[in-house]
Amino acid sequence: MKIHGKAYRTIWPRADEAVEVIDQTKLPQEFTTVVLRSLEDCAQAIRTMVVRGAPLIGATAAYGVAFAMRAEPSSKALIRALDMLQATRPTAVNLRWALKRMHGALHNRGHEERFVQAWNEAAKICDEDVEACRQIGVHGLEIFRAAAAKKDAPLEILTHCNAGWLACVDWGTALAPIYMAHDAGIPVHVWVDETRPRNQGASLTAYELGAHGVPHTIIADNAGGHLMQTGRVDLCIVGTDRVTKNGDVANKIGTYLKALAAKDNAVPFYVALPSSTIDWTLTSGAEIPIEERSADEILKMTGRLPGGGIVTVEIAAPGSPAANPGFDVTPARLVTAFITERGVCEANEAGLLALFPV
Amino acid sequence: MKIHGKAYRTIWPRADEAVEVIDQTKLPQEFTTVVLRSLEDCAQAIRTMVVRGAPLIGATAAYGVAFAMRAEPSSKALIRALDMLQATRPTAVNLRWALKRMHGALHNRGHEERFVQAWNEAAKICDEDVEACRQIGVHGLEIFRAAAAKKDAPLEILTHCNAGWLACVDWGTALAPIYMAHDAGIPVHVWVDETRPRNQGASLTAYELGAHGVPHTIIADNAGGHLMQTGRVDLCIVGTDRVTKNGDVANKIGTYLKALAAKDNAVPFYVALPSSTIDWTLTSGAEIPIEERSADEILKMTGRLPGGGIVTVEIAAPGSPAANPGFDVTPARLVTAFITERGVCEANEAGLLALFPV
Repeated sequence: MKIHGKAYRTIWPRADEAVEVIDQTKLPQEFTTVVLRSLEDCAQAIRTMVVRGAPLIGATAAYGVAFAMRAEPSSKALIRALDMLQATRPTAVNLRWALKRMHGALHNRGHEERFVQAWNEAAKICDEDVEACRQIGVHGLEIFRAAAAKKDAPLEILTHCNAGWLACVDWGTALAPIYMAHDAGIPVHVWVDETRPRNQGASLTAYELGAHGVPHTIIADNAGGHLMQTGRVDLCIVGTDRVTKNGDVANKIGTYLKALAAKDNAVPFYVALPSSTIDWTLTSGAEIPIEERSADEILKMTGRLPGGGIVTVEIAAPGSPAANPGFDVTPARLVTAFITERGVCEANEAGLLALFPV
Repeated sequence: MKIHGKAYRTIWPRADEAVEVIDQTKLPQEFTTVVLRSLEDCAQAIRTMVVRGAPLIGATAAYGVAFAMRAEPSSKALIRALDMLQATRPTAVNLRWALKRMHGALHNRGHEERFVQAWNEAAKICDEDVEACRQIGVHGLEIFRAAAAKKDAPLEILTHCNAGWLACVDWGTALAPIYMAHDAGIPVHVWVDETRPRNQGASLTAYELGAHGVPHTIIADNAGGHLMQTGRVDLCIVGTDRVTKNGDVANKIGTYLKALAAKDNAVPFYVALPSSTIDWTLTSGAEIPIEERSADEILKMTGRLPGGGIVTVEIAAPGSPAANPGFDVTPARLVTAFITERGVCEANEAGLLALFPV
């Protein structure tokens, strides 16, 4: 997608065999990029959320493995790299998926081949993610087109967190159909949940949509239920960090509350995902590890001073503790359908298996 | 309740016939008070949320009428004062209730009596609110005691926004039973929704509970559903700005989402209210006017700099608009029971009428 008129991916290889990423901790205050040159750089970028979003975490981890193989192509180093990267964040399964795929591509190779093989495999993971997201957009567009045909006003869409191109390599998952609908001339308006505590909605989704010219309005996470009750949301669409075999959906904390409100108001609730987000090893969402993040994300807030400058302020009652679970699980029963790179399916095992036979 | 060891109400008359209030826009950064000396002072304090919370809005408006009568005790001035105060905030019905009561106490009086009569009536409204809240605490305590008796660990309570003593004259509505349970030696722990966009949970509820020594943890508004899904909430309790005849509940935006999650997880959801919050003129919540507040509340955040000083920063993507509905309506079907000054009742017309025959 474009920033200031220039086409970007969120991660790209450089001529000097490093990779460059957009520093998402600096958005929306500044658009800057960071160069990653080592396994440690990649692990740190994932851990600190310089890169975030399930698909992009997977892609970055793949390059981390490649850097590890350049430094030392032994099988011991490979296992160490996979372990280190796996430990960076617990909830998104794309990380494990990418690492497993890198292991599959490398473990039978000679040491001398491993770096080139890993580098190429990481690039392939990126390209495939772009194509998967584009296909999600194509399939989602049909749903949006049908919904838009039923009304004269813009299609009102609510999304939570950031499942846009910044969360992937390009296009995004939940936002891909929005971009395609907008580009196809279908009038859309997006309600953007600010997505506390890290504000990925207000910071990243609003930034993306604004850069692309898509009409949108930021709302407090608390507001979505009221908007649905008062008929101002036609559909919800979100991404996901892990879908279990039965169709349960782990996604950013608060997704479950919006799915409940959608159900209560007969608003369709779609989840967009590439198949790399399906965890066939878990039977239900209760088994998904939920990351507990720092209390500081609740107690502090970073923003721009009116006169320039970026500061972090303490916002809560001094001395009060905070808890910060990063994700929640939306039961499959609340999901209208999955939108995947192979098409649309029901949120259950049969639906997933019909598109992705194992 | 006590601040720094000294007993306070949120509003109190001074010897010089002014009233003094705690400036709630400054909490938790600073504890300061403001002196109100005129109708305009009172209207402005309500409008800017120096005072907030349905019962306290009503009490402040009553003093506003008294000041108007001191300035000019005509019936025209009385009507003008009632109109000006009524226009300050649309959702909390306690405002209209207090103004109606002031009108009733004044309109048949001679001009020379009106100020003293108004001043005394305002004081009575305050004293009665304190007693109503204390009674809510007494009745709620029995529910809490029964719930606590079923477990060995602390009773886990979730609340949204601030329905504590800062929202009332003293004690609070939703927090009154929490204070009484804590004081009675029943171990409690409160999950405090930060309550975006104005953060009344993180700023006021956490401040109150901390000052009283009640164990609590601030969470993002997004987190409550997950906590309920994972069995970490025994009951929810909130206040309300207006209850309609059928038992529908207007309260701070986001309350509805928590009520949905409580229902989905069989967690009891209580609403605490003095009878001044019942609007017998409306048949259902859909008729309640919902205040639309400034986008700045979403786009900016005020806090403390680590080195001292208080600043407001811009937190969202530059140029993105925001919408800010201040309240939502929780349907009566999601409410386990009302806790009022006359006892506990079902959230429906029969329940309300049994306690408050009209």
